[in-house]
Amino acid sequence: MEIAKMREEYLQNSPVYPCFPRRLQPFRVELYFLLEEPSSSAAAKLLSIVIFACIVLSIALFMLETMPELGAVQEEFWVASECFFTVVFLVEYLARLLVFDVTGVPIWTFIRTPMNIVDVVAVLPFFMIAVLQSGQAIGFIRAVRLVRLFRIFKLGRYSTGLKMMMVALGNSGQALSVLVFFLGIGCVLFSSVVYHVEKLSCPDRARFNQTELATYLQECHITRKSDFGLCCNEFDAPVDFPSILSTFWWSIVTMTTVGYGDTVPRTNAGKVAGAFTMCSGILLLALPIALIGARFQEAYNMAVSSRRSGFRDVSGPGMTDPMTNILNCLENFSYS
Amino acid sequence: MEIAKMREEYLQNSPVYPCFPRRLQPFRVELYFLLEEPSSSAAAKLLSIVIFACIVLSIALFMLETMPELGAVQEEFWVASECFFTVVFLVEYLARLLVFDVTGVPIWTFIRTPMNIVDVVAVLPFFMIAVLQSGQAIGFIRAVRLVRLFRIFKLGRYSTGLKMMMVALGNSGQALSVLVFFLGIGCVLFSSVVYHVEKLSCPDRARFNQTELATYLQECHITRKSDFGLCCNEFDAPVDFPSILSTFWWSIVTMTTVGYGDTVPRTNAGKVAGAFTMCSGILLLALPIALIGARFQEAYNMAVSSRRSGFRDVSGPGMTDPMTNILNCLENFSYS
Amino acid sequence: MEIAKMREEYLQNSPVYPCFPRRLQPFRVELYFLLEEPSSSAAAKLLSIVIFACIVLSIALFMLETMPELGAVQEEFWVASECFFTVVFLVEYLARLLVFDVTGVPIWTFIRTPMNIVDVVAVLPFFMIAVLQSGQAIGFIRAVRLVRLFRIFKLGRYSTGLKMMMVALGNSGQALSVLVFFLGIGCVLFSSVVYHVEKLSCPDRARFNQTELATYLQECHITRKSDFGLCCNEFDAPVDFPSILSTFWWSIVTMTTVGYGDTVPRTNAGKVAGAFTMCSGILLLALPIALIGARFQEAYNMAVSSRRSGFRDVSGPGMTDPMTNILNCLENFSYS
Amino acid sequence: MEIAKMREEYLQNSPVYPCFPRRLQPFRVELYFLLEEPSSSAAAKLLSIVIFACIVLSIALFMLETMPELGAVQEEFWVASECFFTVVFLVEYLARLLVFDVTGVPIWTFIRTPMNIVDVVAVLPFFMIAVLQSGQAIGFIRAVRLVRLFRIFKLGRYSTGLKMMMVALGNSGQALSVLVFFLGIGCVLFSSVVYHVEKLSCPDRARFNQTELATYLQECHITRKSDFGLCCNEFDAPVDFPSILSTFWWSIVTMTTVGYGDTVPRTNAGKVAGAFTMCSGILLLALPIALIGARFQEAYNMAVSSRRSGFRDVSGPGMTDPMTNILNCLENFSYS
Repeated sequence: MEIAKMREEYLQNSPVYPCFPRRLQPFRVELYFLLEEPSSSAAAKLLSIVIFACIVLSIALFMLETMPELGAVQEEFWVASECFFTVVFLVEYLARLLVFDVTGVPIWTFIRTPMNIVDVVAVLPFFMIAVLQSGQAIGFIRAVRLVRLFRIFKLGRYSTGLKMMMVALGNSGQALSVLVFFLGIGCVLFSSVVYHVEKLSCPDRARFNQTELATYLQECHITRKSDFGLCCNEFDAPVDFPSILSTFWWSIVTMTTVGYGDTVPRTNAGKVAGAFTMCSGILLLALPIALIGARFQEAYNMAVSSRRSGFRDVSGPGMTDPMTNILNCLENFSYS
Repeated sequence: MEIAKMREEYLQNSPVYPCFPRRLQPFRVELYFLLEEPSSSAAAKLLSIVIFACIVLSIALFMLETMPELGAVQEEFWVASECFFTVVFLVEYLARLLVFDVTGVPIWTFIRTPMNIVDVVAVLPFFMIAVLQSGQAIGFIRAVRLVRLFRIFKLGRYSTGLKMMMVALGNSGQALSVLVFFLGIGCVLFSSVVYHVEKLSCPDRARFNQTELATYLQECHITRKSDFGLCCNEFDAPVDFPSILSTFWWSIVTMTTVGYGDTVPRTNAGKVAGAFTMCSGILLLALPIALIGARFQEAYNMAVSSRRSGFRDVSGPGMTDPMTNILNCLENFSYS
Repeated sequence: MEIAKMREEYLQNSPVYPCFPRRLQPFRVELYFLLEEPSSSAAAKLLSIVIFACIVLSIALFMLETMPELGAVQEEFWVASECFFTVVFLVEYLARLLVFDVTGVPIWTFIRTPMNIVDVVAVLPFFMIAVLQSGQAIGFIRAVRLVRLFRIFKLGRYSTGLKMMMVALGNSGQALSVLVFFLGIGCVLFSSVVYHVEKLSCPDRARFNQTELATYLQECHITRKSDFGLCCNEFDAPVDFPSILSTFWWSIVTMTTVGYGDTVPRTNAGKVAGAFTMCSGILLLALPIALIGARFQEAYNMAVSSRRSGFRDVSGPGMTDPMTNILNCLENFSYS
Repeated sequence: MEIAKMREEYLQNSPVYPCFPRRLQPFRVELYFLLEEPSSSAAAKLLSIVIFACIVLSIALFMLETMPELGAVQEEFWVASECFFTVVFLVEYLARLLVFDVTGVPIWTFIRTPMNIVDVVAVLPFFMIAVLQSGQAIGFIRAVRLVRLFRIFKLGRYSTGLKMMMVALGNSGQALSVLVFFLGIGCVLFSSVVYHVEKLSCPDRARFNQTELATYLQECHITRKSDFGLCCNEFDAPVDFPSILSTFWWSIVTMTTVGYGDTVPRTNAGKVAGAFTMCSGILLLALPIALIGARFQEAYNMAVSSRRSGFRDVSGPGMTDPMTNILNCLENFSYS
């Protein structure tokens, strides 16, 4: 069996870092297989399922915490469960750290593997909040709490789908930057045009008498529409588009064809500019997306063919991170 | 003729189940052709058209029942027609059940064929409602009534298009699960970010005096906008996004680019998060859809080429369910 | 030259229909080239441009007629211009009818060519309105007026783009019917589910006291939202979804990802059903559109390659309608 | 080195235009390399980065100028910075103009290169505003200010992505015109149908009594909905669709699937027409976009392969404009 051969080989190696005596090597190899090779034993399989469940539960609790319907749940429960998951993830990370060198990987390579960075980030919020609790930086604490959300990327270790996505996005970095660049150019261009074109229709407030101005302001406040002309603020900018930067929101909503309709051009000239924005959005987005779609399909085909031929590595030859191995046993979770 | 040859062959077979005497075999073979081979005779063709019409009518009545314009129609009419269609579908299913074994299919294979499960489900609601009527479980009865809708899948027996769709979806199960997984990850990530980011802008209610609070609450109640800041509820959560789970609706509406605009981020930070959601949605969806589109095109090409070469089976060799055969005669309904 | 050769050949032919004497043949051939071969002479080119301009002008006037800003324009102007264009198109059609047989096409083939049917329809409304004016069927007259819009298809004679579109749509008839069928199934399924699921949340009006009912009705009338529960009408159906057929509008708006937001599910169960509708919509539409897109690309490539090789016929060999020929000279209009 | 060889060659050439003495040739060649070949020296690299920064800053200031939050900034600051950037761009253009002929390009070719036209347009607004300031044409001044936005296209000199986009759009000119033509036809058709179909449901105002009319007008003014029927204006046209031309906005918003929901058909017939508009929109847009997407992918593949083989020219052989050369050194900016 392949696992047996790997074990043999790892036992031969001496520890890379001298802090572990030679006679601990067999135990460390066992621990390594327990953590990184779910297919090596029933216990390893169980462990991987337990950690998978912990990740999912931890994210679920993160979301449930915000539900007013669960207001009756004691604050202590959320804190306690958060403690528990932090300890689990911390122990898991430390255990990995103890045995990573049995395969001969240098420590720096281990630490900078994306999956291991995610592992560190997953336990950080707890300690940061503990430190900050003494002070009163509530706004910052809230932001730190959001970091717990990063645990969702820990799932990457168990999902071929997510891994495929990463490979596809990695390969299409150029196409993605083209997409961002096009969207940026489109935003700047169309926001500026719509802002200035709508601004031209603002009524001249100086010509209103007292009563007209009051009616105009009240109509604009309630329905954003007035019989006196386009609703504008005191800087002679349309209320829907107070500045070019604010118009970015409308541009991006329009170019992605989401179209909420919360801000809409109301003059004829603005609508013509809007029509151009829509058409450009479809063109701008269609182009790079075709490229990324093609890259993703390549990654998918590679994953499927390598699965058939017995190899599971979709990120190319020469990759030595533990992700590749763990995928072998999680056939039931993979591809989702 | 092919039908004649099949008839010869089936007559040779003895009944698989001993409950039918040998001398009934010719009648059972005739019944089989009547039910499963519309091309075998004019009567069989007529029967298939009648059943097709019953399915369509039954669904049409299901929908018309809800129209207030038809309130004048007696309740008895709906019950009677429902009775009638249930009896038709029940008789059809029982007749199929009497003769399915002439082709030598084991009973378990017959029962678990998806089309036959649909047939059973299509007649169930009537009996379930009859049983429940004595009790008072009105909510449950309503849900049971909805089961009648499953009859629409009975059309699958008559539509190559629907069958092709099923084949395509079946072949792209992995791609579909990638899609669901991506959407799930995206929902959790972006809902959490938008919820927490909008929450930061909630005004501090403790600083309001009595009058300000009243104005704030009233403005928020009517237009969801207030001059005092973002409209939040008493738990300091934005009224548009009361909890992370509720924000899922906004996320999915945004990521699919539907964009109703019923809930929209209103702070600058929330809008930035919203822009990321839109772009991610386009990327997340584009990728698996390309895969499924390709699968569907394969299924379509296979269907077209097999149609030309005289075979009609699009779901691969070795399939023996009656669907394949019935397709032969319904050239006029097929591909729609 | 090719035109010269064709002329020679046509002169040899005797008229197919005996109503024209043999000695008129040269004039009829000249007229044929004038009408159908813009490249044959400067006059023919001019004529084709004049008719093209008449079509565009006639449609422009059709639209301008509805503008309140042009209310000052005399009714007589619209009637006169309509008369003028009808006469032009009538004369054009009659002239074509006089000479169509020089190429040896039988009369029935000429009449049933789609472009010639459009020509007849383009002149019909004027005469129908004249006949109806005596009576008082105003509603019907309005509908007849809309028929003038069909003139836009007369442009097909001058646009390779529109012709390509027709070829692509014609070749993908099966894919189109799959699209319509899928949309239909999706509409029926999701409309029924959302209607019934939202209906479950309607409050029980019998339990309201007089004051509560009044508040509920008023709140629902103004904002479609009430603190007493979902807004429902007197038949216990949600105001947004009064019947399954009405819910079709929401379904189609959602499945095409247009998402106006005029009607939106408001209960949690309805939102879950809505999420399924969105995802299904993307899948349902993506599949047949890929097919049609591929067909269109084929038609486009064929048009481009045949243009290069000197042939212009994109609709396959054996086509004899006059459309093919006229395309030769309108290089400046073509592909748009 | 290649630069050295080019320098040698250019030094050999005599000036094409006799206004420059022969002995200035070495200085002019140096200036040429400084401006057009960032890879030729550290100074040239620095200069290209400085100009790139000026372009970005100039556009950023253009947008910041409109922010009310920056109202405290003195008007003089905006004018001074605008002066500064205009001078920079003017000096850059004049310097290019002094030395363009060292490569033997005729002056007309230089002037009509798109990038050089953009350079001229980028400095024009300042002088036009200076001239107009004496007069009072404020509306025209505003429009002129918008011309400053064209500076964004100056980035094209530094971005392979933008250049690729131009090549792709240039190659798909026919497909683009098909897209515009289809959208135009669709707009005209569906706007006319929806306008006329909705108009049919306008209530007959003559039948209202005084009170009813008042209620109707008030209800329509506030919520655009009335219990007396569809809300129409005094010309018996629906308020949402006052004329066919105004309905164009709804058509384009619907066909691109943006779907703001600011104007929506409200009658059953209008909704049926709307459903057709949506489906047609998806078909109409899908077709030409597939063509343009394919062109873009070709341009992208060509750019990538030529980059690998050492050539950087994506616009075909024989191109002599300076854009090709400058790309060599800006590896860090390119592809975005």
